[in-house]
Amino acid sequence: MRPIRTQISLADGRALYYYDERPGADRTARDQRDLPRTVTRSEIRWDPVHEEWVVIASHRQDRTFLPPPDECPLDPSRDGRHTEIPAADYDVVVFENRFPSLSSAVAELTGSTDHPLFTRRPGIGRAEVVCFTSDHAAAFASLPPERAETVIEAWADRTAALGARPEVAQVFCFENRGEEIGVTLSHPHGQIYAYPFVPPRLQRALDAARRHRDRTGECLHCALLAAERAAADRIVAETEHWTVLVPYAARWPYQAHVYPRRHVPDLPALTEPEKADLARVYLDLLGRFEALFDTPTPYIAGWIQAPAHTDRDIAHLHAEVFSIRRAAGKLKYLAGSESGVAVWINDVTPEQAASHLRTAG
Amino acid sequence: MRPIRTQISLADGRALYYYDERPGADRTARDQRDLPRTVTRSEIRWDPVHEEWVVIASHRQDRTFLPPPDECPLDPSRDGRHTEIPAADYDVVVFENRFPSLSSAVAELTGSTDHPLFTRRPGIGRAEVVCFTSDHAAAFASLPPERAETVIEAWADRTAALGARPEVAQVFCFENRGEEIGVTLSHPHGQIYAYPFVPPRLQRALDAARRHRDRTGECLHCALLAAERAAADRIVAETEHWTVLVPYAARWPYQAHVYPRRHVPDLPALTEPEKADLARVYLDLLGRFEALFDTPTPYIAGWIQAPAHTDRDIAHLHAEVFSIRRAAGKLKYLAGSESGVAVWINDVTPEQAASHLRTAG
Repeated sequence: MRPIRTQISLADGRALYYYDERPGADRTARDQRDLPRTVTRSEIRWDPVHEEWVVIASHRQDRTFLPPPDECPLDPSRDGRHTEIPAADYDVVVFENRFPSLSSAVAELTGSTDHPLFTRRPGIGRAEVVCFTSDHAAAFASLPPERAETVIEAWADRTAALGARPEVAQVFCFENRGEEIGVTLSHPHGQIYAYPFVPPRLQRALDAARRHRDRTGECLHCALLAAERAAADRIVAETEHWTVLVPYAARWPYQAHVYPRRHVPDLPALTEPEKADLARVYLDLLGRFEALFDTPTPYIAGWIQAPAHTDRDIAHLHAEVFSIRRAAGKLKYLAGSESGVAVWINDVTPEQAASHLRTAG
Repeated sequence: MRPIRTQISLADGRALYYYDERPGADRTARDQRDLPRTVTRSEIRWDPVHEEWVVIASHRQDRTFLPPPDECPLDPSRDGRHTEIPAADYDVVVFENRFPSLSSAVAELTGSTDHPLFTRRPGIGRAEVVCFTSDHAAAFASLPPERAETVIEAWADRTAALGARPEVAQVFCFENRGEEIGVTLSHPHGQIYAYPFVPPRLQRALDAARRHRDRTGECLHCALLAAERAAADRIVAETEHWTVLVPYAARWPYQAHVYPRRHVPDLPALTEPEKADLARVYLDLLGRFEALFDTPTPYIAGWIQAPAHTDRDIAHLHAEVFSIRRAAGKLKYLAGSESGVAVWINDVTPEQAASHLRTAG
């Protein structure tokens, strides 16, 4: 079921999109706050040593940091309290982040860089917030399947809209969950970044996938999926269209990938039955993560999609869901080996993790 | 001043090296503990999607975790309490980690992997612990210059010894400091990893440096150093042989690189005057990090050295020292953008960070 999208503008000009599951919702409420237009001083700088872009977003240092629940800016506007969402209720909303790391309204660069090794550009792009529900105390894992489907439709819609912009190279939909991940707002929400470059980890994966296809004629992810299904010991769950597995060389103690078995580039390319099936299997996986330990598992979930304009034939859509919790009360920290030289050390074997996830939830 | 090295064996067969600043220290004390030989079940697995090795070290889940100060295993053995160091005092010691992620005594792989996309090897290599001082309450930044020089000599000595082994591809000396980084023992210490492969971040940097040299005839790091010195606004400190700078495209809120201005591949290649000068400039930099905030700054410090057997002409030695603290009481978390797709978002401009570091301490 495609949700009904209604676009409005917030007081400072930012766009907000309601995604409603049923017709008839009143979306005429205006943002009554007196919000100054914020200036995004963001730039991207080229690191010639590692050949990758870094985002420098120094204006974000004073952003909202763990506000008390009665000041949550992601709740609907009710009882005279005005939040980011003008309506008194909503199903799913997406809006431009007030403190974006990338923006289409970014300040001109000041100062000069007059050396060829110092390359920078304005931080043009987009950072959006996705509210999964108006219920502040909920979690993605507790959503009904219909709501999860609406979130998936919103992700697909925004991926298509942002990807159509010539300045956007990659759309990345993700959720950070838990204070251990640094989440500053506990209201169930995710984010969408539209980068003006293909992120380095994705470009490296695309390069590897192209080499694999040139060598073998097949999609690397399709081949991996077949190999994992044959091996079976890292499979967590399967449905009609989807396979959930812990990858053979997982970096994180608990890490699961959600793959469509059909070779599709991104969320907009999914059929309605595939999206409905995804809602169920994704909720099932998040429920397994929640049930791993006595307290909710902190996790990062991100959608690996094809770039907006390049390598679209090579990419194979999948979600990566992973936790930094390696045991009850113990976190996996990224220290010298990981943060310094990018060698991940995983204390849980992928086969153990898959077994735990299969029995959890 | 080259320290005096004495090698002994611990009760379970692990090697320990004393580095003494003066002759005459009694190094005959035997390890009197009844330690079982531990089996290291470590393997490295190839991730064909990102073309990098991941270390799976599932035997480490029960390793020592923040013991009370009176049980610190890195203190000298005193008053009937037996620690990892049999002697009653020491200057600097290096020993094999009891819970290593990589080891020369690693278990044979069990099970089979009969698919070409699933490649694994035993986790052969080495993980060593470096104790900077016998004083449990000290910090690297508080060491006298003579002691810092002894640590540098120990790093150089172990780099040369481990790098001479045919199975070792890369030696990485690093320090994780602060509970925020996940440090489980507060005694001032660092680690040395000897990897059986060149870590992916280092190999990518070597590839980029080789392309730069093929294109321009010059070392990328020498060129960057010259450009940074000309720009001046990211320079933190300079001495006769060394330059400390915040890189133009820094990923971390506080990140400083310590460069020898001479093109040298690794620590063993430094001259005695360069090492003595490094002790001073490195202590100065750590002191600046300590003074940034009201409480000691958590940091990771790692030495980027040439691989043991490859690309040695291209590499240019330097230390990377960086903190995840972005403001008093605020940490930079690696969330969706960083951990998911490797796009770092830095909330502090490199010029601000350099200015803070110049005025601190």
